[in-house]
Amino acid sequence: MIDLKSITYDKNWIPYTRDELVDKIEKSMSARRFNHVLGVEQSAIELAEKYGCDVNLASLAALVHDYAKERSDLAFFDLIRANDRFRPLIPFGNNIWHSILGAELIRYELDVRNEEVLHAVQVHTTGAPEMSLLDKILFVADYIEPNRKFSGVKTARLLADEDLNAAVAYELKHTLLHLIELNQPVYSLTLDAYNKWVAHVDYK
Amino acid sequence: MIDLKSITYDKNWIPYTRDELVDKIEKSMSARRFNHVLGVEQSAIELAEKYGCDVNLASLAALVHDYAKERSDLAFFDLIRANDRFRPLIPFGNNIWHSILGAELIRYELDVRNEEVLHAVQVHTTGAPEMSLLDKILFVADYIEPNRKFSGVKTARLLADEDLNAAVAYELKHTLLHLIELNQPVYSLTLDAYNKWVAHVDYK
Repeated sequence: MIDLKSITYDKNWIPYTRDELVDKIEKSMSARRFNHVLGVEQSAIELAEKYGCDVNLASLAALVHDYAKERSDLAFFDLIRANDRFRPLIPFGNNIWHSILGAELIRYELDVRNEEVLHAVQVHTTGAPEMSLLDKILFVADYIEPNRKFSGVKTARLLADEDLNAAVAYELKHTLLHLIELNQPVYSLTLDAYNKWVAHVDYK
Repeated sequence: MIDLKSITYDKNWIPYTRDELVDKIEKSMSARRFNHVLGVEQSAIELAEKYGCDVNLASLAALVHDYAKERSDLAFFDLIRANDRFRPLIPFGNNIWHSILGAELIRYELDVRNEEVLHAVQVHTTGAPEMSLLDKILFVADYIEPNRKFSGVKTARLLADEDLNAAVAYELKHTLLHLIELNQPVYSLTLDAYNKWVAHVDYK
C-alpha cells in the first residue's frame, strides 16, 4: 500500500494539499461518510496502481466524490433553477444530484479544475457508455471499498482484482437490479452504461 | 365471452373482415405463434370489455400485433436503411424491430390505417410513459394470454383483473428484471415506461 504522505496534487488540479483537502472533506460530512470516503480513496489508489492510473488523481477523485452528498435538497434545487439543462434531473433525487450537480459544487467550492476528476465524480453513481480509466476506478472503488457490506461485494472485489471492465459490468447490473427490485427511478445514463458494458450494445 | 362473429372493423381501420384478417395472419406465422395471437385477442377483448375500450379495436390490435415477428433480420435491415431515424434500433434486435418497425409493415401490407392500433403495436413490447387504454390492453394481454406459462403470470392475471395500471407496472418491472438477469439490451423506451408506471417519475 502506498504511503498517503507521498500523494501530491498538481496546483492546476486543486490549490490544496491532500491534508488540507482531507480537512475540508471531513468538515462537509458525517463521520460515517468520511470513513467511507477514506475507504474509497484506499481502494481507488490500489486500483490505480494495479491498472496504471495516476494514483494522485485517483486519491483526489475519491476524496471529493461525495463532497455534496449531504447537501440539502433545497441547495440542489437552487442549482437546478439556475440552469435549465439540469431540470430533467429533478425526479431522480440525491443519488443523481450529488454526482452530476455535485461536480459543479466541487468545481466552484473546492476549486477543482481537473476535468478528468470532475467527470469521474459526475458519473460515479450512474456509470456511462464512455468511461475513462479514472472513471472506472472511482466507480468501482465506491462499490468495493473496505467498509462496504452487501451480498455480492466479495464477487465485485474479486472481479476488480482481475478485470476492471468486468467489475464495472457487475456493478452496473447489480445496481440496476437493486433499484428495480425497490421500484426506484433509474436515470437514463445508467441504462446506457448497462447497455454498453453488460449487453455490449454498440451505440456508434 | 363475446361472440367473435360479432366483431366488425370499420372500413377506415382496415379493408378486411375479421375472417379475412385471421386468414392473412395465420399465413404470416407459425401455428404456435398464431395460437398465441388468438390468445392475445381473447385476453384483449376481455380487458376491453372490463375497462370500457372498443372490443373491435382490441381484436384488431391483437390480431396484427405480431404480424412481423417472423420476418427475417434482413427484411428489417431494409426498413432501417430506408429511414435514418430507425438506425438507433439496430442493436436491440427482433423484439424491438417487430413492434416499432412492425407497425410500418402492418400499415403498408395490411392497410391498417387506425393510428390507435398502430401505436398500440409500436409500444406492445416496450410500453411507454404515455399509454392509451388500448396500448395498455394490448401490452397486458400479450403478457397474460391463456397460453403463457411463466412464474408470475398468475399474479399478472390477478392484477389485470383488478387494476390495469398495476398490471402494466408489474409487467414492466418483471420484464426489465428478466432482461437484465440475462444481460440483454434494454431499449430506452422500456426504462422511460418503468420510470413512469413503476417509479412514478413525472417527466413533465
